[in-house]
Amino acid sequence: MEGDMRRIVIDTLGGDFGCKPIALGVAEALLLNPNAEFVLSGDEKTLRGYFEAMHADFGRLSFLDTDDCIAGDEPPTCIFGAHERASMVLALEYLRDNSEACGMISAGNTGALMVGSIFKLGLFGGLKLPALSTALPCAGKNLVCLVDCGANMDCKPKDLARFALMGDVFMRSIQGLESPRIGLLSVGSERGKGNDLTKEAFKLIEALPLNFIGNVEGGAVVDGSVDVIVADGFAGNIILKNTEAAGKRAMALVSAVQNGGSEAELELIGRIRERLYRSFDFNSQGGATFLGTKKIVVKAHGSATEKTIAACVSQLLRLESRGFIQKLRESLTV
Amino acid sequence: MEGDMRRIVIDTLGGDFGCKPIALGVAEALLLNPNAEFVLSGDEKTLRGYFEAMHADFGRLSFLDTDDCIAGDEPPTCIFGAHERASMVLALEYLRDNSEACGMISAGNTGALMVGSIFKLGLFGGLKLPALSTALPCAGKNLVCLVDCGANMDCKPKDLARFALMGDVFMRSIQGLESPRIGLLSVGSERGKGNDLTKEAFKLIEALPLNFIGNVEGGAVVDGSVDVIVADGFAGNIILKNTEAAGKRAMALVSAVQNGGSEAELELIGRIRERLYRSFDFNSQGGATFLGTKKIVVKAHGSATEKTIAACVSQLLRLESRGFIQKLRESLTV
Repeated sequence: MEGDMRRIVIDTLGGDFGCKPIALGVAEALLLNPNAEFVLSGDEKTLRGYFEAMHADFGRLSFLDTDDCIAGDEPPTCIFGAHERASMVLALEYLRDNSEACGMISAGNTGALMVGSIFKLGLFGGLKLPALSTALPCAGKNLVCLVDCGANMDCKPKDLARFALMGDVFMRSIQGLESPRIGLLSVGSERGKGNDLTKEAFKLIEALPLNFIGNVEGGAVVDGSVDVIVADGFAGNIILKNTEAAGKRAMALVSAVQNGGSEAELELIGRIRERLYRSFDFNSQGGATFLGTKKIVVKAHGSATEKTIAACVSQLLRLESRGFIQKLRESLTV
Repeated sequence: MEGDMRRIVIDTLGGDFGCKPIALGVAEALLLNPNAEFVLSGDEKTLRGYFEAMHADFGRLSFLDTDDCIAGDEPPTCIFGAHERASMVLALEYLRDNSEACGMISAGNTGALMVGSIFKLGLFGGLKLPALSTALPCAGKNLVCLVDCGANMDCKPKDLARFALMGDVFMRSIQGLESPRIGLLSVGSERGKGNDLTKEAFKLIEALPLNFIGNVEGGAVVDGSVDVIVADGFAGNIILKNTEAAGKRAMALVSAVQNGGSEAELELIGRIRERLYRSFDFNSQGGATFLGTKKIVVKAHGSATEKTIAACVSQLLRLESRGFIQKLRESLTV
């Protein structure tokens, strides 16, 4: 394997649709990224079958053979039990033990992946849990990073301050922004608006070396006013799911307007749906990145498609090529 | 004034566009609701001018003449100061002092209206603040009530339990539902999901005589799975604003697809925009209802139009005709 090769570990089990979309996504990523190689944990024979059928470059593929899979409804701590050969566990351990491996992607159980990341990979100082960061396309030109979007339920003000620091590094890395605009999710733009948590967090964040623009409201995910939205994981999660659902609802309303129209009408409706889809279907854009783990972990949605996985690979490679982990380490010692 | 007349007090100052849209809305409401009469606080001469121009039925109009107005950026406690003749204060005091008056509508300063409602009208036992309830049309067939959508920032579990009780009464009254489905806003449908607040609130709500269906996620505002969404005011507010903003974004995407198309295309785009508007423009649907005040208070958006005000009147009349306040009082003593 060459010097500038990037090695990515893929957990191929645990997604809602088995390993096939994962394998197809990796095959696409092989074509798109000549400097990427992949270590796949999962059922080697089945995986080889898919890659052979696609005439994939086996020189950049290796396997961690197992058929043990952590199910979606198992508790996060299941990684400590009988699942020592689970595909997710093997992937995490390979990532931990091999300095050439820069990150991993999994569409499996989020809680297990989080606990596994903490105990197998470790977190940077001061963090109890990683934060989940998702880059959303719904504002148009630029992606908006929402952090935390579901890992940390009961946050302290200093947690939100760390999310701000990490979101800044994330957007500098993933989008190459020089000075991402950081907004704190609240109920009004004025300084004094918010709950006890955000009012205290405001004071901490404004003291950091960040481009902090202050409070933003629930519409900031779509209005393009910020690059990073800082929120506790409860608020972040509900706003993430709400935005996606509102987009789906809009698509359904567009489709429902159709009543045996002309070909031109159908074409127009198709074009509108495509635009809405590109803006509001987050699954197709990649995955959530764990912020705070000592190596890059990208969580793809359980219903990840081939396209999702290929997007996750691009995301991971972009973060790696911009020194994301090193920058994150430096940022958290501010 | 006749026996089955409903008397509604209107604060005509404090909206973003002066008293004109308020007066036009009342004129429309006069036509739509022959059993409604209105007491309007504000600049009587100006108001009379509008109503004369519209040949309104002056037999059902009376006035509390004042030109003092509470501005949008004044602190909530300003109602205690020099504003004793403010249109909002006169309206609240009229409502308090006249048993014939069933409720009021204001497009003015929300904080001042809330503080005024508490001190002039009073709250039912156990409440420190009223909750704000908004009935959203975005799920399609049925309205979804979001409570609290912004009044109570730092809630205790028992606050959320009261929101559930009041949301139930609200939807039974406003929609005539027999047994509204109540959902608790959280990050997953499983019982154990959520933050400390929602996990404790879950236990309290399930013990109430309600049709509690458990946790719902951020998409519940648009998916039609519940009639009432219970949330603390911080989460409720961000999800309310996010939903509205996502709808606007969808409308902008639809409009942007247009590039000199045919008349049929333009017509189709217009129809789609109209559907999205009806689903996501909450301002046109009426206002937020205060839950917990001893008389009905409806807060219209600052940018309320004539249509908003007429919708607020219908909303208030529906609540009144279904004995909302009496039912609320009974419910909170469970």
